[in-house]
Amino acid sequence: MKVKEIMDNEFISVNMDQNLAETSIMMEKYKKFTTPVVDEKMRLIGWITSLDIARGFRDGLKTVQEIMHPKEDIVHVNENDPARMAVLKLSKHKVVSIPVLDDEGVVVGVVRTFDVVETLSQLYEVKVYKIFEAMNEELKGVSWDELMEASAIMTRRRTGKRIKPEEYEQRIRDSTFGEAIWATGGLEKFFVGLIAIGELVIARKVARARK
Amino acid sequence: MKVKEIMDNEFISVNMDQNLAETSIMMEKYKKFTTPVVDEKMRLIGWITSLDIARGFRDGLKTVQEIMHPKEDIVHVNENDPARMAVLKLSKHKVVSIPVLDDEGVVVGVVRTFDVVETLSQLYEVKVYKIFEAMNEELKGVSWDELMEASAIMTRRRTGKRIKPEEYEQRIRDSTFGEAIWATGGLEKFFVGLIAIGELVIARKVARARK
Repeated sequence: MKVKEIMDNEFISVNMDQNLAETSIMMEKYKKFTTPVVDEKMRLIGWITSLDIARGFRDGLKTVQEIMHPKEDIVHVNENDPARMAVLKLSKHKVVSIPVLDDEGVVVGVVRTFDVVETLSQLYEVKVYKIFEAMNEELKGVSWDELMEASAIMTRRRTGKRIKPEEYEQRIRDSTFGEAIWATGGLEKFFVGLIAIGELVIARKVARARK
Repeated sequence: MKVKEIMDNEFISVNMDQNLAETSIMMEKYKKFTTPVVDEKMRLIGWITSLDIARGFRDGLKTVQEIMHPKEDIVHVNENDPARMAVLKLSKHKVVSIPVLDDEGVVVGVVRTFDVVETLSQLYEVKVYKIFEAMNEELKGVSWDELMEASAIMTRRRTGKRIKPEEYEQRIRDSTFGEAIWATGGLEKFFVGLIAIGELVIARKVARARK
């Protein structure tokens, strides 16, 4: 996934000579804490935040140029960078948004933290049930009931707790991938649990075939 | 994981009677776009953003009370809510941060989008190699080389592309879980690929034992 697939291209921008009152009204109207400052060709030349606007008013300044951060101080990404580059920069620099440029330095979008939160959290929201369905489809010749039975057996072996196959099924219907990895102690452990179930169900299938 | 485990407890807060200039200087100093307004017992009574400060200056207002959003309009979470509640609210309401309250309505922290981005993105950054190591450890009696060989075979079966076991190993060393699920088309598909490899390696193990 590339930056251009997660960026917001409905951003606002301002120019250097714009006055602060007008700029402030626009940012408030569109609820933007930050906005790029661009030249007449939409190339990035600066960046302002609502904190800069407040400082400008406090200090009696008049235009965007007097409060903006110059281009060289601005964390930015290219539209063709991997999306994770934007994610890493947002969290490393603790900024709420970063401008996205094309190869000519033209601002083509903005990546905002809450959009990233939305994208990232989708993975955490996948139901564990969906993973078991996919697993069941992959394991030819194993029924859903056999899969739930193997899961219940493996849960008892690993945790010592007795659980009925129906209870296990209910649990994976209710829980998300995010909850499951927190509950099992991490991504690798979660997968190891699934692999163990897969192994058991395959072993039972092989044993059945031999009879 | 609970909200209190992901919240920032190094937040700033303001009171209703504070003047805007002072408040603005403090928010700028600590680089906060938002801050809770609290009473003398640190209970939440309002919320202000740097956009509100800018508006206040523009309109000649003087105190926090004149610009703040009242408590009933503020999206908040309880410290004992599941962390995902905070994540869902940040992205649903498109806010950069939300206050965290205890059962008495006292502000005990703030959840900010870039902290959430950092927490969420850790999962995406796990090396695929780590998952294979855990899988290898789980599959008793299967060597690492056998696992890589089965992976290369399965890749050819699924994609039609020939790949050497060493190349496969290099690929999983270089790639992250986030890249892998994007490349395979989603979490379920990624996992199905792993199960297919597990199944093949177990079948080969069983066949070997029979000889």
